[in-house]
Amino acid sequence: MRPVLIGGKWREATRPVDPEVAGAERSASFAAVNPVTGAAFADFYPVSGWHDCDVALGEATSAARVLEESDPRQIGGFLRDYAHRIESNATELCATASQETSLPVEPRLLKVELPRTVDQLRQAANAAETGAWRDPVVDADRNIFSCLGPIGPVIVFGPNNFPLAFNAVSGGDFAAAIAAGNPVIAKSHPSHPMTTRLLAEMAFESLAKSELPHSTVQLLYGIDNETGFRLVADKRAGAIAFTGSRTGGMALKEVADKAGNPIYLEMSSVNPVFILPDALTSNPRIASELVSSCLGAGGQFCTRPNLFVVMDDDAGRSFVAEVASQFAAAPVASLLAASVADHLGEAISRKTAAGARLACGGDRIDQYRFQNTLLSTDGKSFLEKVDLFQLETFGPSSLAVFADSAEQMLQIAGRIEGSLTGCVYFSDASDLVRQLTKVLRRMAGRVLHNKMPTGVAVSPAMNHGGPWPATGHPGFTAVGLPASMRRFARLTCYDNVERDFLPECVIARLHGNGR
Amino acid sequence: MRPVLIGGKWREATRPVDPEVAGAERSASFAAVNPVTGAAFADFYPVSGWHDCDVALGEATSAARVLEESDPRQIGGFLRDYAHRIESNATELCATASQETSLPVEPRLLKVELPRTVDQLRQAANAAETGAWRDPVVDADRNIFSCLGPIGPVIVFGPNNFPLAFNAVSGGDFAAAIAAGNPVIAKSHPSHPMTTRLLAEMAFESLAKSELPHSTVQLLYGIDNETGFRLVADKRAGAIAFTGSRTGGMALKEVADKAGNPIYLEMSSVNPVFILPDALTSNPRIASELVSSCLGAGGQFCTRPNLFVVMDDDAGRSFVAEVASQFAAAPVASLLAASVADHLGEAISRKTAAGARLACGGDRIDQYRFQNTLLSTDGKSFLEKVDLFQLETFGPSSLAVFADSAEQMLQIAGRIEGSLTGCVYFSDASDLVRQLTKVLRRMAGRVLHNKMPTGVAVSPAMNHGGPWPATGHPGFTAVGLPASMRRFARLTCYDNVERDFLPECVIARLHGNGR
Repeated sequence: MRPVLIGGKWREATRPVDPEVAGAERSASFAAVNPVTGAAFADFYPVSGWHDCDVALGEATSAARVLEESDPRQIGGFLRDYAHRIESNATELCATASQETSLPVEPRLLKVELPRTVDQLRQAANAAETGAWRDPVVDADRNIFSCLGPIGPVIVFGPNNFPLAFNAVSGGDFAAAIAAGNPVIAKSHPSHPMTTRLLAEMAFESLAKSELPHSTVQLLYGIDNETGFRLVADKRAGAIAFTGSRTGGMALKEVADKAGNPIYLEMSSVNPVFILPDALTSNPRIASELVSSCLGAGGQFCTRPNLFVVMDDDAGRSFVAEVASQFAAAPVASLLAASVADHLGEAISRKTAAGARLACGGDRIDQYRFQNTLLSTDGKSFLEKVDLFQLETFGPSSLAVFADSAEQMLQIAGRIEGSLTGCVYFSDASDLVRQLTKVLRRMAGRVLHNKMPTGVAVSPAMNHGGPWPATGHPGFTAVGLPASMRRFARLTCYDNVERDFLPECVIARLHGNGR
Repeated sequence: MRPVLIGGKWREATRPVDPEVAGAERSASFAAVNPVTGAAFADFYPVSGWHDCDVALGEATSAARVLEESDPRQIGGFLRDYAHRIESNATELCATASQETSLPVEPRLLKVELPRTVDQLRQAANAAETGAWRDPVVDADRNIFSCLGPIGPVIVFGPNNFPLAFNAVSGGDFAAAIAAGNPVIAKSHPSHPMTTRLLAEMAFESLAKSELPHSTVQLLYGIDNETGFRLVADKRAGAIAFTGSRTGGMALKEVADKAGNPIYLEMSSVNPVFILPDALTSNPRIASELVSSCLGAGGQFCTRPNLFVVMDDDAGRSFVAEVASQFAAAPVASLLAASVADHLGEAISRKTAAGARLACGGDRIDQYRFQNTLLSTDGKSFLEKVDLFQLETFGPSSLAVFADSAEQMLQIAGRIEGSLTGCVYFSDASDLVRQLTKVLRRMAGRVLHNKMPTGVAVSPAMNHGGPWPATGHPGFTAVGLPASMRRFARLTCYDNVERDFLPECVIARLHGNGR
């Protein structure tokens, strides 16, 4: 059984207490499964009991007190050293991640996700060092100053679909939380513990070389639901970041909200694509762009188009037929986990039972594979069952909606639930484009023109966020630095405080040296 | 019965449905009470049923769509015109507010709160016009842009203690929400409906003169709890701002959180003041400053010190005796409502039952008056019952805590719950001051040195916020422009979007004309 990383040591996990038998502990462990072969790995990982969380929270609290006084260059140095180690170990890391997730080593892991991961860590290092995120405000006349500062221990729950770039111990939430001066308690996604362990080992080595507190990074592999609820409700937690399913996110949110702990969720998203008739005649690449966006990584991107809307005319119908034929011809991916296929099958069944037609696919091939599946429905049916037709189909699937008019297309747009993205494809910037863009601006965190939503650039101008239920708050982004650090910051005002006690960023701004 | 303001018209309220009798409506109305005489006014106000909320939400949704396209100068013009009307009607307004709240016309209402209110509205006008709050970010190479924009209809619940400066239809939340381009549905505090009506009438006149949508400002006087829950959970609400009791705030938060609607709460706060021995010897004004801070406005400021800590030595004991004697000698205020005296009496009883000693006061005089009351306890007892001794005593009261050592003083600081403010009084910036300041920085939204916490400047550097349970999120402030507008903003990214469709603030930044 692998040890957990708590308090600067790799130590044996303590097990959950058995609620049935007083004083007894449950033995709990798990191993990842190779989604291609279905075989479990021989590497076992522990499910931690509350004791591990309690110790980790105590250690993180102490670390937070040191971190808030630390020189940001130390934080930057740690993040850069860690990024360098990840690059130096790229081959082993990507091979392991590929085994656990079935995502291909090339190009996905080695050429795309790993470079993105180290780029994020380095951008976070720069953001920590420049300190612009602290946003100092000076009111020298009144002797009042304010700035953002670290929020305290951040608990990061990573998702299954990005074993590196959103990993709880190396991804965007991790990088943003650390850069803002907070220790992280990472909770590995159970589908890729070996990858997470390799990453945490590198972080541990980088940390040991740094002057940062040894509990700046801690790692748990598994916790049961009750322990998870207790963890996110603990007073010592500064904030929680969760990327994953809506069910999981909602359950954690309820508990964290009640405890008054800020929680940031990046859950499921519809990501509608509206394709106007003039785009179909002028842009022959749309079908292949849409198919790539729907099927890339087995359709397991949170920005994948869950539905697209075309006009119910000859061009619209032949476009959908073309998409269906490309879906059918595309290779079938091994999914991240059998549960992905379970949920996909269930969502597709519910939609077909509600009247959606199968344009292609629809069947499960084996435990880890599902046919590339395209459903279709008409605008009227969609509007009658908006919730059902917006059920997320995480996996290689999408839904074509045929609108009978520009008005109906607008009505459909108006009923789309809060999403990460909303796209319009068009050739002429007509009034319909203008109206659709306005509606999408309200329901989506990111509006796109003539571009598919998958592929989230790590840009300072990115918003990987959006209105409920895509996320828990429409004012924050999970990607893009320094903006994503704001989730892990709290505001402090210094009123008549002696100059010696003011944060350096305030002093610098006061002397005109700030940003 | 007075009409409510919905959809740009003063109209008769619809009444709540009687849950006991199918199809029947309950008659529901209330009148404010003069807290000095105990007599109810003859001016009756309605309790609205769900129908009023439903219509108001629909109207606000339409208004939001127009507002998000409006020229910020129109918003600025409206806020300025409204501020001017408030000034022009200052005499009637302050006389009415004084009758409803017992707060004196001078200096409080006419010389302090009204000027603050109009200053806030004008600062909000400036903030709307300069647009710096939108924080545009340009990534021209990738053709990705982002900025903040309005969040949608904002529901504002005003408190009882600032009939003008925090009134739901004229106060800080109102100003910030409107300045960020959002319509407001204001819910009057039931203790001052006449003042709220006068304000809303002025807002209505200013609105009629402007080109803004007529439902930019709507007003309800009363709603029952069930209707309030339904209102804050409605999908059409962009955000909710609540200032008031912890009980009320928590109940609304639970419902809003579940619905995924951002809610900002400004609830009760401990606001500890740590007074070091060297301050007592060097600064003879501390006792009178503390007494003013505790008893100002009948002790009904949310930043009032609920407790202060001194050393258990001769100087500390005589300081507390001096404070007690000034408490006893100070005039007794009429409170805002009988319920304030109810809650104060209950909290004082619970603290004395737990062992707190009465240094002065302790008795209710009549329905609206309570003796200025000072309690005291020792550090050990405090640490044993930290929750109980931090129960809010809203009203003319405070608790002196005698610490037996510097260590105990630090322990006490470490157990204070999240607060709006935390103060240290000292002469020499000793190590204890440094350590106390560090602890206070973590538990308070605003740290003060040698200054009492009451009196919240409307400064861009202000933070009127803090960690849970003082507020619902430590990253936001309720006072200070443009920072307070961020609560009512959401982030949108424009990815490959045609230039014609980009917000003006992004275009200006792109051309180097932005802030």
